[in-house]
Amino acid sequence: MSDSVTAFAPASIGNLGVGFDMLGLALADVGDRVTARRADGDGVRVAAVYGLDGEPHPYLSADTNQNTASIAAAALWGDKGGQSGLELSIRKGVPLQSGMGSSAASAVAGVVAANALLPEPLATEALLPYALEGEKFASGGLHADNVAPSLLGGLVLCPTVLLPRTVNLEVPDGVSAVLLHPELSVNTAHSRRGLARGCTVEQWLAQQGYLAGFITACARSDIELIRATLKDVIIEPQRAESVKCFEDVRAAALASGALGCSLSGSGPSIFALVEDRHAKNLAVCMEQACRALGIDCQTWISPMDAPGARVET
Amino acid sequence: MSDSVTAFAPASIGNLGVGFDMLGLALADVGDRVTARRADGDGVRVAAVYGLDGEPHPYLSADTNQNTASIAAAALWGDKGGQSGLELSIRKGVPLQSGMGSSAASAVAGVVAANALLPEPLATEALLPYALEGEKFASGGLHADNVAPSLLGGLVLCPTVLLPRTVNLEVPDGVSAVLLHPELSVNTAHSRRGLARGCTVEQWLAQQGYLAGFITACARSDIELIRATLKDVIIEPQRAESVKCFEDVRAAALASGALGCSLSGSGPSIFALVEDRHAKNLAVCMEQACRALGIDCQTWISPMDAPGARVET
Repeated sequence: MSDSVTAFAPASIGNLGVGFDMLGLALADVGDRVTARRADGDGVRVAAVYGLDGEPHPYLSADTNQNTASIAAAALWGDKGGQSGLELSIRKGVPLQSGMGSSAASAVAGVVAANALLPEPLATEALLPYALEGEKFASGGLHADNVAPSLLGGLVLCPTVLLPRTVNLEVPDGVSAVLLHPELSVNTAHSRRGLARGCTVEQWLAQQGYLAGFITACARSDIELIRATLKDVIIEPQRAESVKCFEDVRAAALASGALGCSLSGSGPSIFALVEDRHAKNLAVCMEQACRALGIDCQTWISPMDAPGARVET
Repeated sequence: MSDSVTAFAPASIGNLGVGFDMLGLALADVGDRVTARRADGDGVRVAAVYGLDGEPHPYLSADTNQNTASIAAAALWGDKGGQSGLELSIRKGVPLQSGMGSSAASAVAGVVAANALLPEPLATEALLPYALEGEKFASGGLHADNVAPSLLGGLVLCPTVLLPRTVNLEVPDGVSAVLLHPELSVNTAHSRRGLARGCTVEQWLAQQGYLAGFITACARSDIELIRATLKDVIIEPQRAESVKCFEDVRAAALASGALGCSLSGSGPSIFALVEDRHAKNLAVCMEQACRALGIDCQTWISPMDAPGARVET
C-alpha cells in the first residue's frame, strides 16, 4: 500500500441556472489537487496550501479545522478507521469565491485521497456524505450541487431531500458548457443569507416546470427544449445585480448562440450551454463583453460529461 | 366525408401527486364520448347530455356556453372554418367533480369530434389550445394536467410556462395506476381558491426535487426511486383534510405495496402507483378502507401508457 496519494477533483457549476441547490455539472481540466501522506500521530492535518503558481496560498487557511479538504478527509478518516496520522498538501486550481465550487473541489479531493489510504477504501458514491461535511463548513448549508458533480462527474441531480442518493443524468449530445470567471468575488454563505425565504406559487411552478423540462430535454438531446427551459426565475433575479458584468455577458452569450446563460453557483462566474460548434466563438464573445467593462476574466469550455474526481498515479 | 363522428376521451389523474398543475396520467377504459353532427346554421350547440345509464344527465348543462365540450369545440370550429352548424351529444362516463378530469375529458372529446369534421383536420397535438379553452371555463385557470393526458395519452409533462408545448414522458415498465373514486364531491375551482399563494424555499426545493427525481425514475423504471419521490409536500397537506377517507385509504395503500398514494387532481379521488402484480390486491385494500368508513366507492386499474383520445368508428 502506497504511503502517499494525490487526488484531483474538478470545479463545477452549481445550480446550473435551472436547478437551484439540486443540479450541478462537472467541469473538465480545472480543479484542486490534494496529496495525502501517512504521518505520525493519529489525526488529519494540513501541511501546506499552495496556489496554482506553486507558492503558498495567500488567503487559504492551513488550520485543519478551517479547510474543507481536511474537514472532509478527517470525517472519513475518523469514521472508517484510518491507521496513522494523515498529512494533506493542497494545491488550489479553482479560484476562491468564484462560484466554481472551489470549497467542494477541495473537500472532494481531500476525501478521495484519504479514501485511497484506508485499509478498505469505500466506493466513490459512498464518499459523498464525508465530502459534504467539508462543504457544509464552507457554505453553511447542506446542498450537494457542487460536491456531487465534483465527485461523480457529469450532470448530477442531487436534491437535499434525496441525499445521500444522487442521480447522474443523461447529458445531451453535442452540447458544451462555457464558463466565464470574472475578477470579482462573491461570498457564497453571505450570498445565501440575502435570498428571500419564500416564493409565490407561480414562481415555484414556473421554476419546477423549467427544471422538469430541462432534465427531459437533456435526456432527449432536444436542443430547442433546452433553450426553452434553461431559466432561473427565482434566484438569478436576486443575485444578478451583485455581479456587475452579468447582464452584458449574458446578452453577448444569448446573441452568440447560447441555449441559456445564468450564474454559476452564487456567482460571480457565469456559464452558458451551447452547441459544440459555437462554443469557442461563444467564449470569445463572453470574454469581450466582460473586458469591455474593464473586468479581467478567464473562460473554460467543457463537455457536459466531464469526469469526476480521481486518484492520479 | 361523414356527417357524424363520435370521439372518446379518457379520464385522467391530474397532478399525479408530485407534479401539481404540470403532470397528468391518462386512465384506460373510463372517459367521455361526444358525437358531433353537422346541422343547420353556423354555430356549435349541445343537443343533449346523457349519463352512463343513457338517461339525460341530471346536473350537466346543455347550454352551449356552459359545457366544456361545446366551448372547446366552438373555439376550434370558429377558428378553423368549420362549415355548417355542429350539434353535440355528450355521454358522460367520468363522474363529475371527482378529481378524474371530467371537464377535461368532455372538452377533449368535443374538440376531437369536431376536428374530424373540419375540411382540414389538425394534428392531435394542435388541438390542445382549443381543449384548454373548455377546461379554463370549468376550473378557472390555465393548466393542462388533465387535458393533455386525455388528449395525448400516457404520462404528460405540461407546465403552464411551456404551453402549448407538452412532453410525453417515458413510463416505467411494470407499474400501474389504481384510482379510487369515493362518493364524495369536491369543486375544483373552489378547491383552488383555498390554496396558499406562496410557499417556503424549503417546500419549493423539496417538491421540485421530488418531481425531478420522479421523472428520472419513471424513465429508468427505477422502482425504489419512484417510491422515494412520489410525494406532494405542498398541495396535498392543504387538501387532504377535505377528503375524509384520504388518510385511511392512503394508509391501506401504502401497507399494500403502493409506491406512493395521493389525491387525484383536487380530489376526492385518490390514486396510487403500484407494481402490476400487486395492483388488483391494492385496489381491493383501498376499497375496503373506504367502505369501512361507510363511503361507497369504485376503483379502476390502468396501465401507465393508456391511450389518449380517439375517433371511434
